[in-house]
Amino acid sequence: MSVTAPQGFEAAGVAAGLKSTGKPDVAVVVNRGPLKVGAAVFTSNRAKANPILWSQEVVRDGVVEAIVLNSGGANCFTGSFGFQTTHQTAEKAAALLQVSAGDVLVCSTGLIGTGDEVFRAKVLAGTEQGIAELSADGGDAASLAIMTTDSKPKRALATGDGWTIGGMAKGAGMLAPGLATMLVVLTTDAVLDAAQADEHLRAATRVSFDRLDSDGCMSTNDQVTLMASGASGVTPDPEAFAAALAEVCRDLATQLQGDAEGASHDITIEVINAASEDDAVDVGRSVARNNLFKAAIFGNDPNWGRVLAAIGTTEAAFDPYDVDVWMNGVRVCSAGGPDAPREAVDLTPRSTSVLIDLKVGSASAVILTNDLTHDYVHENSAYSS
Amino acid sequence: MSVTAPQGFEAAGVAAGLKSTGKPDVAVVVNRGPLKVGAAVFTSNRAKANPILWSQEVVRDGVVEAIVLNSGGANCFTGSFGFQTTHQTAEKAAALLQVSAGDVLVCSTGLIGTGDEVFRAKVLAGTEQGIAELSADGGDAASLAIMTTDSKPKRALATGDGWTIGGMAKGAGMLAPGLATMLVVLTTDAVLDAAQADEHLRAATRVSFDRLDSDGCMSTNDQVTLMASGASGVTPDPEAFAAALAEVCRDLATQLQGDAEGASHDITIEVINAASEDDAVDVGRSVARNNLFKAAIFGNDPNWGRVLAAIGTTEAAFDPYDVDVWMNGVRVCSAGGPDAPREAVDLTPRSTSVLIDLKVGSASAVILTNDLTHDYVHENSAYSS
Repeated sequence: MSVTAPQGFEAAGVAAGLKSTGKPDVAVVVNRGPLKVGAAVFTSNRAKANPILWSQEVVRDGVVEAIVLNSGGANCFTGSFGFQTTHQTAEKAAALLQVSAGDVLVCSTGLIGTGDEVFRAKVLAGTEQGIAELSADGGDAASLAIMTTDSKPKRALATGDGWTIGGMAKGAGMLAPGLATMLVVLTTDAVLDAAQADEHLRAATRVSFDRLDSDGCMSTNDQVTLMASGASGVTPDPEAFAAALAEVCRDLATQLQGDAEGASHDITIEVINAASEDDAVDVGRSVARNNLFKAAIFGNDPNWGRVLAAIGTTEAAFDPYDVDVWMNGVRVCSAGGPDAPREAVDLTPRSTSVLIDLKVGSASAVILTNDLTHDYVHENSAYSS
Repeated sequence: MSVTAPQGFEAAGVAAGLKSTGKPDVAVVVNRGPLKVGAAVFTSNRAKANPILWSQEVVRDGVVEAIVLNSGGANCFTGSFGFQTTHQTAEKAAALLQVSAGDVLVCSTGLIGTGDEVFRAKVLAGTEQGIAELSADGGDAASLAIMTTDSKPKRALATGDGWTIGGMAKGAGMLAPGLATMLVVLTTDAVLDAAQADEHLRAATRVSFDRLDSDGCMSTNDQVTLMASGASGVTPDPEAFAAALAEVCRDLATQLQGDAEGASHDITIEVINAASEDDAVDVGRSVARNNLFKAAIFGNDPNWGRVLAAIGTTEAAFDPYDVDVWMNGVRVCSAGGPDAPREAVDLTPRSTSVLIDLKVGSASAVILTNDLTHDYVHENSAYSS
């Protein structure tokens, strides 16, 4: 059910011809209230797509009526014509829903530079068709329409004491932090005000999507949106809601990792006993972005030397000669020297764990990444995306 | 002739059994004077190999008699035993050459974690054999003995008004800045004091090896060494010497780029009209490290959107909607929007140029990189290195 699992939401996913395959490519999610609360976090890339520039303004007052998302074109670096397309999309949706265009978010994903007259006409027609097909069980259709190179839709659900959180996500390449590169829509029927929604969303993304770094490449179109309808009439316990939202985000982040372009390993890098959480994140991310490490994992090679070389490029507090590294439960490096032989490590399972013990403090963090494979190179070189 | 082209140097390259192929793996370069001036720059990776820890101390007084280099094992993260191996290598060479061990540099390259008793015995025997075979035309042999996955030796030469600079380099993976990842030995018969040698070396590496970023992975064993014998008796014009040394370094850096593991394109990224040289370097490096960009070039795809997305992750001064990008002489993006169609760009030649005009200042920089290919993934996953 994804985004229509909570009460108060309708959604649709339609095929507007943006994808050459004819698959669904425009999704609409509408909040029927009674509350119309919205919060969003955006890519920190300074090269932002037109929908990001628009949505940043829309969300400023904490009121969001609806969100329109298209795949099949990023509408990024498409000039003022592209911005007008985003604006017209919000206006088209607003007119049909009888709300203000300033309360309609827009997201786009696909090839940068795509956003001509044909694109505009299809997005506007798709928006109209999507609104005509809105339904209280349209969440699954919406989650299909935002897919690009994703092999499967990403959906998540959590329930609390009288309230529900639903979510959908897309993303299979350009996955990197600050925040991870993707489109995500989260909905809840809990009673939240705008400040609470914003606070909960930032806290949840910080420990989920921001810790996913598949290929180090930050997108221009990232957006994670939370909409709250209040339709359950229940004001949630803040801690319980925070935990549930974080769980939904982690669930979606793990689904994104598991479907990363061309990957053959899902790698969980856990950094423990760091001097600070920032240090732990820096170390984990540095390893996650090291191509030699990533290629070694693809080759089922427990090459811990590449892990230490990656750690050494950070500013984190550590002693290079007092670090332990474990791979899939086997300590391959202790005190900065060789430990168990490489034959002792079985890296054939898709799920791979790397544990790095910095031995200088008590902070920790988990970073999710993928290996560097022939299929990654193929998928990102054989066609434009 | 590489490092023995200048007067006052002898070198050798011998097979000590460190490489399973039986190819040469220990090189020795000796400065016969009359001056024994030495300077070196080292990897900025905080995880430094034992030879780096040793050589940093040796070079402190500006006096270097000789350098011993081995391939077939990095002697990194090999504990105190590994450090003693480095120390014993310097002592062995010093005893045979009748100099102080504190004036003998040591470099190692190969797999991290390699440095056991067998390794030590072979390095010591190779050092002895190398010193026995020293000759005034041993430069070529030395340049062969430092190769790892290099497909060919790297040598360079420059001559000035009565003086000569020679150089050799190895490196084909883990090529990244700060400084680029490799071993380099430069020799000259010009008359220089230690301060001059250090200053010239830092200036030359800053605009050559530091601007080479093949795969973003910084090594634990990088070292660039300059030795001056003064044997020509000529005190060089400082500007002429600086220019010649920079040219030798750029020549070697370009050879390293051209032999990078698995690469099918040598990419020159030129950033112009930046607010500062640092900004230009940051932008160039960010593009050079973007896997999606690198994979696109492998696929002969002029995907300028990935260039702009990479620029957007930097702190450099620029307006994302006023940037021009040229690929192989064709302007594919102007003012942050599409320009020439992708069909207009021919990316099939190995030599590829990307020109980024930031339009905010007058500073510029050139970064050298490579594409991300199937062969890169294969070479770095199919075996340990």
